[in-house]
Amino acid sequence: MAFRIRPVDTTFYDLFTASAQHLVVGAGLLAEMLADGADREAVAQRMREAEHQADETTHEIVRRVNSTFVTPFDREDIYALASGLDDVMDFMDEAVDEILLYEVKEIPAGVSKLVEVLQQCAEVTAAAMPKLQSMKDLAEYWIEVNRLENSGDKIFRRTLAELFSGDFKALEVLKLKDIIESLESGIDGFETVANIVEQIAVKES
Amino acid sequence: MAFRIRPVDTTFYDLFTASAQHLVVGAGLLAEMLADGADREAVAQRMREAEHQADETTHEIVRRVNSTFVTPFDREDIYALASGLDDVMDFMDEAVDEILLYEVKEIPAGVSKLVEVLQQCAEVTAAAMPKLQSMKDLAEYWIEVNRLENSGDKIFRRTLAELFSGDFKALEVLKLKDIIESLESGIDGFETVANIVEQIAVKES
Amino acid sequence: MAFRIRPVDTTFYDLFTASAQHLVVGAGLLAEMLADGADREAVAQRMREAEHQADETTHEIVRRVNSTFVTPFDREDIYALASGLDDVMDFMDEAVDEILLYEVKEIPAGVSKLVEVLQQCAEVTAAAMPKLQSMKDLAEYWIEVNRLENSGDKIFRRTLAELFSGDFKALEVLKLKDIIESLESGIDGFETVANIVEQIAVKES
Repeated sequence: MAFRIRPVDTTFYDLFTASAQHLVVGAGLLAEMLADGADREAVAQRMREAEHQADETTHEIVRRVNSTFVTPFDREDIYALASGLDDVMDFMDEAVDEILLYEVKEIPAGVSKLVEVLQQCAEVTAAAMPKLQSMKDLAEYWIEVNRLENSGDKIFRRTLAELFSGDFKALEVLKLKDIIESLESGIDGFETVANIVEQIAVKES
Repeated sequence: MAFRIRPVDTTFYDLFTASAQHLVVGAGLLAEMLADGADREAVAQRMREAEHQADETTHEIVRRVNSTFVTPFDREDIYALASGLDDVMDFMDEAVDEILLYEVKEIPAGVSKLVEVLQQCAEVTAAAMPKLQSMKDLAEYWIEVNRLENSGDKIFRRTLAELFSGDFKALEVLKLKDIIESLESGIDGFETVANIVEQIAVKES
Repeated sequence: MAFRIRPVDTTFYDLFTASAQHLVVGAGLLAEMLADGADREAVAQRMREAEHQADETTHEIVRRVNSTFVTPFDREDIYALASGLDDVMDFMDEAVDEILLYEVKEIPAGVSKLVEVLQQCAEVTAAAMPKLQSMKDLAEYWIEVNRLENSGDKIFRRTLAELFSGDFKALEVLKLKDIIESLESGIDGFETVANIVEQIAVKES
């Protein structure tokens, strides 16, 4: 009697990697958005396209889960990971829209620092996705994301304190608070993704 | 040997339809709330009653899932759909409360437009619920809700930009922002419901 | 043939009780934070430690679920309960941080009243957790939490109306609104926990 290896669809790893790479693009566009002399309208348009492509990848993952008999890990974990990655893109998109819409006058340095943290999160996440196949060397990924999230949290709080110091008008505080909250939600979203990956790795080990 | 048809409790479709119809009522009350010369206190009281009735329907669905052996679709999907509908009611209730509580002076036109979108979402959702039984013609429902959500999103952003234009005092901006965020969350909630219905339809097909 | 009793790991009840007791500590620290002449920096430091310990307990529960063959109730319910309790701690921690960070001048009485509701929620929750083993006398727990949540909701709305009355400057409104929203989210979190316990009890009965 022949020994049958459980056939596993490797496309899932490619799709998760593609999904995380959309986030690298999104974080890069956020950085462009803040650059001096940026054509914000044009950058926001590119963000909308990137967000649309990320949506496509998410739908492709969901379609594939629904039509595949043997999945590399639990269906619910695949859904959770796909929608976790998608959520981050939505927060980035939201932040870009707010920066465009609010026409903020003076942007405190903390905003750029939060975007840098987002960029680092995106890069380590994109680098980790292909490792889902072997489930090796993933621990350093989620430890690094947790470290980045902690550092983002400190920047967020310091910036918030600055906004409330009295140096900014109430209306500007309202606008900037919205923007840094979207950025912080994006960073939190990366931590959620890392937690999902950790849970998958624990189950599979 | 007799062929046995799987007995299915049709009450679920009735309950989901009832649940969506509470949302038609809720959206109508929101529109009344904004009408010139409205007795806001009285409308808010009727909203509280509508919200209470919606809760009852939700609990009835949950009780029935827990006590029924064969459900028309996955238990977890029934829970998700019931609580998705319930969440929309909570956002409508929240918006009504905020309009009452904040005693806003000037309400920008975008607020009424968002309520109109909510009313349309509620109507197409209520019309779709009975179709869960045959699972036919549901695609146009979720496509329409997605279209409405996109249009709501544009109205939301335009209204937000208006609030931040400098024509409103900071305190009024704070109040109105809360109100339009509750309305937008309600519209998003309808999209979540449509996504759940889509997932159920995909599984069952 | 011997009758075999299904072996059940009772550690879960102890861990849930420990988790809820961290919330009693957290709510107490929130009350200290508001006391006249409090060393807010020191209290916030103790809060961070309490939050860290709560995290440890949550991780211990997750580890145990993943490594235990027979769990006292469904794995997904254990996860939901553990993360529901953990969420409350995060909201308390957030409120403490905001009180420290924002250097609010005048704190309206509603803030202390919300903290009192949180303390009562924490106490009844901690008292209920050991009853998960027998599943007896839990109904009065979730009824009481629902009652407390309703009363918290009324305090929240009244305080919000006070903030928007015009007696507070826009910047102070922004700060205080954040704080009372964190407190209300904590109270809502206790209601979520009670709903999870109710669902578990219904399934097991």
